[in-house]
Amino acid sequence: MRLDPDACRQRIGPSGHGVLGSVHAERGVDAVPVVFVIRDERVVIPIDTVKPKSGDRLQRLVNLSADDRCVLLVDHYDDDWSQLWWVRIHGRGHESAPTADQLEALAESFPAYRSRGAVTSAIVMVIDAVTGWSAETDLV
Amino acid sequence: MRLDPDACRQRIGPSGHGVLGSVHAERGVDAVPVVFVIRDERVVIPIDTVKPKSGDRLQRLVNLSADDRCVLLVDHYDDDWSQLWWVRIHGRGHESAPTADQLEALAESFPAYRSRGAVTSAIVMVIDAVTGWSAETDLV
Repeated sequence: MRLDPDACRQRIGPSGHGVLGSVHAERGVDAVPVVFVIRDERVVIPIDTVKPKSGDRLQRLVNLSADDRCVLLVDHYDDDWSQLWWVRIHGRGHESAPTADQLEALAESFPAYRSRGAVTSAIVMVIDAVTGWSAETDLV
Repeated sequence: MRLDPDACRQRIGPSGHGVLGSVHAERGVDAVPVVFVIRDERVVIPIDTVKPKSGDRLQRLVNLSADDRCVLLVDHYDDDWSQLWWVRIHGRGHESAPTADQLEALAESFPAYRSRGAVTSAIVMVIDAVTGWSAETDLV
């Protein structure tokens, strides 16, 4: 029922949505929903103008600039618990201007990112560990 | 697009599934998928025998016994981004034997918990703050 790193990669594929957890100095931990693509062994999480945010600077960026440790959880929930699986990526994230290749991958996966200027920045996460779990042991 | 606490409660309802984030001494932050019910201003997250886990003691319990700050994110994703919403609950979580009322609420929401002995323990989270966001501003 544990998934090895290859099986984890297969499950999440080249892009998806998940929850980004980061360290908050006072609250201990923060969590926000994100979309992502994986390119060249890095998780690329766009900062965009499409889904409006509150506040001047995103708290996730404030958190990562103080402590770069973070986690991305990709969770597949189903009312039928024999279908459950999840993949978790631990790593270190930093804000970074997205490369042309990363922008292209984002636009390919998420139509809203095809407009010029939709992605203004990115959190690029260097992967330290990939773990996962599936209720369907026979499929992996 | 920010949801006030009442609108947040309405969105998540009395039970659901989400991601629990906790503080990990070395990795900074952990995240695991969970199901929950909300009873008497507390989030009740079952520890069960239904979804097999790895290891002798759940890491989420190790984390919370060292630092009780945690977060529960309930994320509604949709390929149509006008349908996105999420609710986030910050609080402090402790392992606790579930009460008869909590066990009943869990069994009502999750059929797998109707078998005797399915829920062995619980993380009970005292709520400090509830925040949320919705792309559909007109509905709230």
